[in-house]
Amino acid sequence: MSATLIDGRAVAERIRKQVAADVGALATSPGLATILVGDDPASAIYVGNKRKQCVTAGMRDLHRHLPADVPQAAVADVIDELAAEPSVDGILLQLPLPKHLDAVALIDRIPPDKDVDGLTEVNAGRLTLNRPGLRPCTPAGVLVLLDEAGIELGGAHAVVVGRSDLVGKPMAQLLLQRNATATVCHSRTRELASVCRQADVLVVAAGVPRLIGADAVRPGATVIDVGIHRTDDGLCGDVDRGVNEIAGALTPVPGGVGPMTIAMLLRNTVFAATQDFT
Amino acid sequence: MSATLIDGRAVAERIRKQVAADVGALATSPGLATILVGDDPASAIYVGNKRKQCVTAGMRDLHRHLPADVPQAAVADVIDELAAEPSVDGILLQLPLPKHLDAVALIDRIPPDKDVDGLTEVNAGRLTLNRPGLRPCTPAGVLVLLDEAGIELGGAHAVVVGRSDLVGKPMAQLLLQRNATATVCHSRTRELASVCRQADVLVVAAGVPRLIGADAVRPGATVIDVGIHRTDDGLCGDVDRGVNEIAGALTPVPGGVGPMTIAMLLRNTVFAATQDFT
Repeated sequence: MSATLIDGRAVAERIRKQVAADVGALATSPGLATILVGDDPASAIYVGNKRKQCVTAGMRDLHRHLPADVPQAAVADVIDELAAEPSVDGILLQLPLPKHLDAVALIDRIPPDKDVDGLTEVNAGRLTLNRPGLRPCTPAGVLVLLDEAGIELGGAHAVVVGRSDLVGKPMAQLLLQRNATATVCHSRTRELASVCRQADVLVVAAGVPRLIGADAVRPGATVIDVGIHRTDDGLCGDVDRGVNEIAGALTPVPGGVGPMTIAMLLRNTVFAATQDFT
Repeated sequence: MSATLIDGRAVAERIRKQVAADVGALATSPGLATILVGDDPASAIYVGNKRKQCVTAGMRDLHRHLPADVPQAAVADVIDELAAEPSVDGILLQLPLPKHLDAVALIDRIPPDKDVDGLTEVNAGRLTLNRPGLRPCTPAGVLVLLDEAGIELGGAHAVVVGRSDLVGKPMAQLLLQRNATATVCHSRTRELASVCRQADVLVVAAGVPRLIGADAVRPGATVIDVGIHRTDDGLCGDVDRGVNEIAGALTPVPGGVGPMTIAMLLRNTVFAATQDFT
């Protein structure tokens, strides 16, 4: 039997409609400031999609494009200016930055309450301590997918493969808050397949094409594939297609987790405009 | 065969001597400000021990004792005053506070670089993001015990039982940073014994007397018992004594993790006095 496919495009569409409805009910439209440094084509496409969906949801698109050789202090000045501007609700610094820039220092200049990517130290701490705050978009989107698919997390064993600041670590914290037993695996994990086979819910964000095969999945488990890779055979994720025959539910690649990230960014921008986190 | 006992008293003594040597080499002695609110006898004893060891290590003891009915704003003023005072390197707000006080808000008034308990949002975020910062004392102490006992963490499966902000969650993050595969269990975990039996390193901080029995320990595993409970039969931990026959190494109760906490507080105070975390 094949796994039920979790349709990220459909869920993301519902989130976007809800965001548009929320925005329509506000006296002032939220403003999202995206900052793109340089001309990396992939980054330009990502930022372009974020801006387009921002406008479609009825929000104000406040974009800044800086040259590839912009000095650190000039990026810092732009962030400080956006930080001080009351009409800016969210600030997103598109990563990766050119190598001469210190990304950590720049991200931490973003006021936590405008940090719609959820990447500052303060928002990482708020997540760890289970306090209100802006959560990183991709893991927050995975949680929505699991909820929409009706997956019970309380008491489930959730295994996360990957320990990035952007996905793996916040994902494990979010699953723990939802009362899952949470395991984080990574490149140093021994007997990876055996650890993954214990998962009721397996989230793979390793960045390695087809890392997880059918031998690493318990029959009936829910498998979330955060990876996306362009190969000679087309797009693939971190999960091998053979898992389709074993898993109970599975996110496709493309059309699974991918569409959720921008939808959650829009939702975070509405949160940033309307909520007080302190 | 009985487990090797990990002697926390001896390790804590070595840490304290190192701290005293570090302090002796500094031009200015670090100052630790402890704040005790009210007259809870246990809290008074804890703070008294911290102050005594602080003085023994050659540091300045800057204590503030506030009445049990002190208003929130008055505690905040004391913290702000200590925060602004350059001769204060570390600030410790003894918990628990009387119920009328908002502990979260007060802790987050402590400047992160003086937060020697490692409990502020910023220090929680710094730990998550693996950046320099002040770490919570008890889990940091457990890591030192594991190192001193020669336990290899890279690639090991570490299971933490308990998910408190003070111990369980930061413990799992510290073990993950040391390249262990990290699992967090808690009251909602199903088949707790079976999950714990996978651990090469098992850290129990559940606050439940004798929760973990021999059936939950893999032969030869390292077991760290963070619990301490006063019972009719004397002191006991979260780990049953029967584990002694199964584990490869084990911390006793008392004399295991307990003595490490204050030793790590003293070390954090030296860090706070000498390091720049930003």
